[in-house]
Amino acid sequence: MLSYKDTYKVRRTCRFKQKREVYLPDMAQQDNAGFSFEVQKICPETGARAGILTTPHSVIETPVFMPVGTQSTVKTMSQQELEEIDARIILGNTYHLYLRPGAELIREAGGIHEFMGWKGSVLTDSGGYQVFSLNDLRKITREGVWFRSHIDGSKHLFSPESVIKTEHDIGADIIMAFDECIPYPATVEYTERSCKLTEEWAARCRDTHEKLDDGSCVLFAICQGSVYPELREKYAQRLVDMDFWGYAIGGLAVGEPKKDMFDMVGANARMLPEHKPRYLMGVGFPDDIVEAVSRGVDMFDCVMPTRNARNGTVFTYDGKLVLKNAHTARDFGPIDPGCQCPSCRNYTRAYIRHLFQAGEILGPRLATMHSIYFYLEIMREMRKAIMEDRYPQWRNDFLRRYRKEE
Amino acid sequence: MLSYKDTYKVRRTCRFKQKREVYLPDMAQQDNAGFSFEVQKICPETGARAGILTTPHSVIETPVFMPVGTQSTVKTMSQQELEEIDARIILGNTYHLYLRPGAELIREAGGIHEFMGWKGSVLTDSGGYQVFSLNDLRKITREGVWFRSHIDGSKHLFSPESVIKTEHDIGADIIMAFDECIPYPATVEYTERSCKLTEEWAARCRDTHEKLDDGSCVLFAICQGSVYPELREKYAQRLVDMDFWGYAIGGLAVGEPKKDMFDMVGANARMLPEHKPRYLMGVGFPDDIVEAVSRGVDMFDCVMPTRNARNGTVFTYDGKLVLKNAHTARDFGPIDPGCQCPSCRNYTRAYIRHLFQAGEILGPRLATMHSIYFYLEIMREMRKAIMEDRYPQWRNDFLRRYRKEE
Repeated sequence: MLSYKDTYKVRRTCRFKQKREVYLPDMAQQDNAGFSFEVQKICPETGARAGILTTPHSVIETPVFMPVGTQSTVKTMSQQELEEIDARIILGNTYHLYLRPGAELIREAGGIHEFMGWKGSVLTDSGGYQVFSLNDLRKITREGVWFRSHIDGSKHLFSPESVIKTEHDIGADIIMAFDECIPYPATVEYTERSCKLTEEWAARCRDTHEKLDDGSCVLFAICQGSVYPELREKYAQRLVDMDFWGYAIGGLAVGEPKKDMFDMVGANARMLPEHKPRYLMGVGFPDDIVEAVSRGVDMFDCVMPTRNARNGTVFTYDGKLVLKNAHTARDFGPIDPGCQCPSCRNYTRAYIRHLFQAGEILGPRLATMHSIYFYLEIMREMRKAIMEDRYPQWRNDFLRRYRKEE
Repeated sequence: MLSYKDTYKVRRTCRFKQKREVYLPDMAQQDNAGFSFEVQKICPETGARAGILTTPHSVIETPVFMPVGTQSTVKTMSQQELEEIDARIILGNTYHLYLRPGAELIREAGGIHEFMGWKGSVLTDSGGYQVFSLNDLRKITREGVWFRSHIDGSKHLFSPESVIKTEHDIGADIIMAFDECIPYPATVEYTERSCKLTEEWAARCRDTHEKLDDGSCVLFAICQGSVYPELREKYAQRLVDMDFWGYAIGGLAVGEPKKDMFDMVGANARMLPEHKPRYLMGVGFPDDIVEAVSRGVDMFDCVMPTRNARNGTVFTYDGKLVLKNAHTARDFGPIDPGCQCPSCRNYTRAYIRHLFQAGEILGPRLATMHSIYFYLEIMREMRKAIMEDRYPQWRNDFLRRYRKEE
């Protein structure tokens, strides 16, 4: 058994090597500490990647979908249910957790995993998206962003330094740099100024992280650049030069045309180092995710499955299904006959529709369970197809059926 | 293997004998069909009873608490969670299910068990309580009660005949006769007139049930009589003479003093045949249930644990606990350190409080799970104490701690 100091050294090493082989696999098995990322296979036709991302809390097979647990709970689900369907990493929102219950309290509880009773990994976003999307009153300076709480109107400053400190207090496995998330559309001039600011903030985030670093988390930078490929490429390169542990593609799915979104994903992805994880933030519908995997993205999060489920709409291999529609009233089959999720194994469309009609909490619960399972399942299928050299066929089959093109 | 006709005969027989020994236990094990009730032990000091109530869907150890699943769901819980904590019978509300989704639809689904995916037993109340408590506009005639739907204002008639038909369509294991549930206070004159009506309706319920009876359910009558012991006794005796399969004590916990309530429970219980199950409707707090078990009651239901839980208040051996209180904000222990429920095994008070503060559904879920488990657990403890001849001691210990009298 290695001492804590030894494991710490190895972990620091692997922050830069990021190859499982280099990282001493025996060691990882011994104490489950440390981080690693390994690309296992790349689809030669599309560039889709299968990999293994290891954190001290779980071994995550990529491509991976991370259910969104904004306020330290994936809405309607229990942590046991997430385990049951083999979710291995979830997302928490720094903005929300900072305001309520407060990062101090979470630290006092022993960190986010202890606080919420979750054994898997956690990634926290930086609050960049929220301070821009949830606040009408905000002031951006080089120092950071002043904003008002959506809960009580109180004034707060998020700076690169304060956000990284907050994320360390929360104690996620993967933390995100603080960025400016600009709206769509934005002029090329505004976008470039903003990219410079995000770059400057990324450097300050890295410096703060290095000061606080105790080996418990790794830092991802976020690439911005609106729909301008040259800005996407230029600033991605600058962030790559700063050598972050992983990279996110941000500022997309904010209203731009789908074609632009995928072009930007492509522009960013081709600048990013092959041996580091790539995370497309806030995307998206199942077919969007498949398209992005086809462009070399490894990690995803989105409120789509959970938010839609609470409104009675679920995702299936045959596209969206509106459970509240009258046609399901006497439909005594499951949401999806081919699905093995706990909802489909035990409940009918008619029953779930009744629960929604009656305003019963079990309705959103069963719908959420199904859609999260579906998202996780298509990620597992994609991974398997990549590993077995049949990803392009899987993608075509999936998209044709999902988009009802046959 | 006996033919269906044979099993039907045996089942009919046991409707009147109601003794497990008489009922051919081998037979019950063979096809799990039929109903039986057996009193296994009576506490000589208090009259508390331990028994076994068997339905085609489960073997229920009494005294038993039946979680309330008004709209074919125990609010916030899944059927798998109910199984996990060994709930064996739940309650459904005829009034609600009749209005939404409709008894026809439930029958079409194959009955309430199939409809909601619940393997245990179900008892449906008759809607008597709801047509009186949920409706300002209602008209009572000898025929039945005209009322308006609380959902869309439409007019409906509940008569003894229509309610029994509806309950048969819903397909519960135990169905309740349609009664007039009068408010408190009520004059002795009004109460006696009402008792006569309830008696007449009970006879009509029995006649309708006998016409529809296919061996799938048994019928309980409901004793009324407000707080007048002589009326309670007189009309209980008349219902007993009509030979129902089981008896409920209704019209209590509607505002009368606790002492009156327990006196009435006593007045009813002493009139009821020893070999038939006794069910006190809508009661109550944990200590109320213990008091009623001490007066010979076998079955209970109440919205108390579920409704309170959704408001952030749970029940423990030390009384009520308001989870939303500020003092739980940094309390990183479970709701009840001695409790083995899934909430207490996995989550802290601080986390659950945060969920309530943040308006997250997992909060009510975890609180409900705890309180339902607590109710089931004290029933199991009472039963064990009765079987082991130490019930009076258990009761005294429980009440002293629960009421904080030490």
